[in-house]
Amino acid sequence: MNAVDQVINDLVIANRILANEDVVDAYGHIAVRHPKNPKRYFISRSVAPELVTRDDIIEFDLESKPVRSKEKRQFYLERFIHGAIMEARPDVMATIHAHAEDTLPFGIAKATPLRPVIHSGSFIGAHVPVWDIREDFGDTNLLVANVEQGRSLAKALGSDNVALMSGHGFAAAARSIIEVVRLSVYLARNARVILHAKQLGGEIRYLSQGEIEVRSRGYGPYSNETWRTWEYWATKAGVAKLLYKPETE
Amino acid sequence: MNAVDQVINDLVIANRILANEDVVDAYGHIAVRHPKNPKRYFISRSVAPELVTRDDIIEFDLESKPVRSKEKRQFYLERFIHGAIMEARPDVMATIHAHAEDTLPFGIAKATPLRPVIHSGSFIGAHVPVWDIREDFGDTNLLVANVEQGRSLAKALGSDNVALMSGHGFAAAARSIIEVVRLSVYLARNARVILHAKQLGGEIRYLSQGEIEVRSRGYGPYSNETWRTWEYWATKAGVAKLLYKPETE
Amino acid sequence: MNAVDQVINDLVIANRILANEDVVDAYGHIAVRHPKNPKRYFISRSVAPELVTRDDIIEFDLESKPVRSKEKRQFYLERFIHGAIMEARPDVMATIHAHAEDTLPFGIAKATPLRPVIHSGSFIGAHVPVWDIREDFGDTNLLVANVEQGRSLAKALGSDNVALMSGHGFAAAARSIIEVVRLSVYLARNARVILHAKQLGGEIRYLSQGEIEVRSRGYGPYSNETWRTWEYWATKAGVAKLLYKPETE
Amino acid sequence: MNAVDQVINDLVIANRILANEDVVDAYGHIAVRHPKNPKRYFISRSVAPELVTRDDIIEFDLESKPVRSKEKRQFYLERFIHGAIMEARPDVMATIHAHAEDTLPFGIAKATPLRPVIHSGSFIGAHVPVWDIREDFGDTNLLVANVEQGRSLAKALGSDNVALMSGHGFAAAARSIIEVVRLSVYLARNARVILHAKQLGGEIRYLSQGEIEVRSRGYGPYSNETWRTWEYWATKAGVAKLLYKPETE
Repeated sequence: MNAVDQVINDLVIANRILANEDVVDAYGHIAVRHPKNPKRYFISRSVAPELVTRDDIIEFDLESKPVRSKEKRQFYLERFIHGAIMEARPDVMATIHAHAEDTLPFGIAKATPLRPVIHSGSFIGAHVPVWDIREDFGDTNLLVANVEQGRSLAKALGSDNVALMSGHGFAAAARSIIEVVRLSVYLARNARVILHAKQLGGEIRYLSQGEIEVRSRGYGPYSNETWRTWEYWATKAGVAKLLYKPETE
Repeated sequence: MNAVDQVINDLVIANRILANEDVVDAYGHIAVRHPKNPKRYFISRSVAPELVTRDDIIEFDLESKPVRSKEKRQFYLERFIHGAIMEARPDVMATIHAHAEDTLPFGIAKATPLRPVIHSGSFIGAHVPVWDIREDFGDTNLLVANVEQGRSLAKALGSDNVALMSGHGFAAAARSIIEVVRLSVYLARNARVILHAKQLGGEIRYLSQGEIEVRSRGYGPYSNETWRTWEYWATKAGVAKLLYKPETE
Repeated sequence: MNAVDQVINDLVIANRILANEDVVDAYGHIAVRHPKNPKRYFISRSVAPELVTRDDIIEFDLESKPVRSKEKRQFYLERFIHGAIMEARPDVMATIHAHAEDTLPFGIAKATPLRPVIHSGSFIGAHVPVWDIREDFGDTNLLVANVEQGRSLAKALGSDNVALMSGHGFAAAARSIIEVVRLSVYLARNARVILHAKQLGGEIRYLSQGEIEVRSRGYGPYSNETWRTWEYWATKAGVAKLLYKPETE
Repeated sequence: MNAVDQVINDLVIANRILANEDVVDAYGHIAVRHPKNPKRYFISRSVAPELVTRDDIIEFDLESKPVRSKEKRQFYLERFIHGAIMEARPDVMATIHAHAEDTLPFGIAKATPLRPVIHSGSFIGAHVPVWDIREDFGDTNLLVANVEQGRSLAKALGSDNVALMSGHGFAAAARSIIEVVRLSVYLARNARVILHAKQLGGEIRYLSQGEIEVRSRGYGPYSNETWRTWEYWATKAGVAKLLYKPETE
């Protein structure tokens, strides 16, 4: 498989995993940067992630215009999230926008921040900004539906890995498809653990900055531990046959 | 397909989706107005929604009497909810009555109102009245079992989209089957998000009146974004083969 | 089918429904009184309810001794619950003992009583006693493992429909298999709704005594509404083919 | 089957049960001591437990070095947990390390201890220590990745059955595979019941020391009641065909 075929293959797997792990339902999407052209990204046409196949993938530029000018298929309205984050963050190779239910309370009740409390949540990073579209754009339908709104969100994200979007969902960014999927699945789990810890009362033990850093240093997309969950989730989602692990690494 | 065939087809899909998405169990039902005769509606005979097929659909007038006078099948006891709302609200084409578990706490603990907090919950509308059958009718079995009780509920609903029914469930109304199904699924999700946000503490960010209005203007039953979830839910519920999208729109 | 065959058939269906609806796991059981001999009852040998078939059913007397003196199969240790309740309550035809998870908090945190708050929970009855084996028997393994312990529980149950068993589970009693299954499934749901309503804050609306009584009067085991859920649950549990509705009623 | 074949067979069943019961996901593992050589233990290569087969099982010494010096397969990074506990506790035959979600809040919000409140949770034991890797080792990736860290955890466990690991998970120890699996499944359930009881308010009834002791005396791995749940869980996990109950006992 060449590099483009491989990221498209992994993008299909990722769509199915995200649906099966309840990160997305009919809504929510994942994009990956073109491996040969950093000014382009791939994302599915507008369809529920569980139904995505190779043929649904479309190539866009960073202003989220389709590369094929005659492209007639429907696009995700909020693809601008992906374009804007990739434009602002050359280190980012893959992005997710979703509305995983257990993350939503943290975007509308800001008294309790969403921060890592479990080791598998460390990849969230020490700081999760909360972006509210209302601040820059007033009353909208809450969707990130143009380049300006995308850039506002990307600015709020800054150099972090996840931004909550008030009343709406979250945007996550990482250096590979595998990592952004892992981050998004554990984001919801980490959120639930905070919620339940709050109900138990007393002080909460958060991961320290040092713990977060040690963990980040130890993992790559094809490290044995990262691959283990990718393989497992793909199997559960019924796409084990698409799994492909490159030799190099 | 003619207009009647199509609404009956979609009514079957809707029943299966509502069961699969846990809006209904053995109880709860959905009705659709006759597309050619606004004084009639269709609803299944008394059977669990997951088991509904075309042959189960019966036609009623707005007093919830069957059109075929010799109809022998069992009717839903609470079909009066649908007749009364359609009688009072010419704009409404489809109605649901259900007991989705996560909506129930809001009907019995009135300190926290059920209002939209997530963008997908906007269709609930800014105000959700709470109707308590006990106020007009004293001690009953809580069921809406005649025209008068139906009209009392319809009056409480007024021009809103959803009314909670204390100790019982909710009634939802919309201008199409697809929209009333979407509203009902996200009603439960919106309820859970409020519940969890309350547990996190602090002030809750509700959708503004303006945000609700902008969202309402942007969606029709066959808009690409609405169809996406209908297609997804139908596929998950095993009735993808029944999907039918009219050309017009 | 004769009367005995029919209750055994329904007992098998009930076991499968209780497993599928998460009322029981490997533990928990349901018994039915012998339709011709009120001093006998039927219950499965010791096996997980999901695995129960006709051949597993054993006949006991009300002291929970097997009728066949040479019976070699393993018995449920806690069958005494069923014998003692049927001994004390001639009106009761079927009993369940289970540990449905969402009922357990109410047995160990007695500040909030478990009472009906939703119409489908009305069959719990207005009062649910809490029995603690520790009070009469000191430190035990918490199991109701002999006639005396069974009678202590039956005494606490009195004329009510359900008794919570502290740190352990509940016992439910009704006039038919269908009704005791329905009661047990909705007991857990009613418990969850109270729990969540408490988290929303403010006063909770409980069903009134009058509402509970009106509901009780309106339902029999083969009423259309009761049958609807029995049929639905049996279908979901994969035993639709065993369904049998007697002509009479 | 000889003794080694049997523990490996049961280890495979256990892996599948733990995955199916949500004790583990892609992470978490179970080990069993070699039945003939107490200085050795068996555990799978690094793979998601749901995918484990006989061929994945590897033999280690108590310092968690593979017995076959040329072993090339990937090992679980945290196998040291198992080696260190078996080294310190000759009575322990099987150990689990996992991150079952509902146990995690108790490791980070220490105001509410995790203690048995339900009879099926009695095997947790009266005291559950909380071990925080940060105390002995400062900022780490939270994994128990060497012999020293394993021994620190084993020391915290002492003579108890379960230790919580702050921000990470738990380690459980028992005298057989069947018992450590049962303990781990009910640990999460017991945790949820405490959490919900706290939300109901008022004082919580914990199991007394005497109740815990009476229960412990009554159960062995092949007692009828313990086997019942093993058989049930194995059936649900799709490995009923592997079930093997030794004649002796």
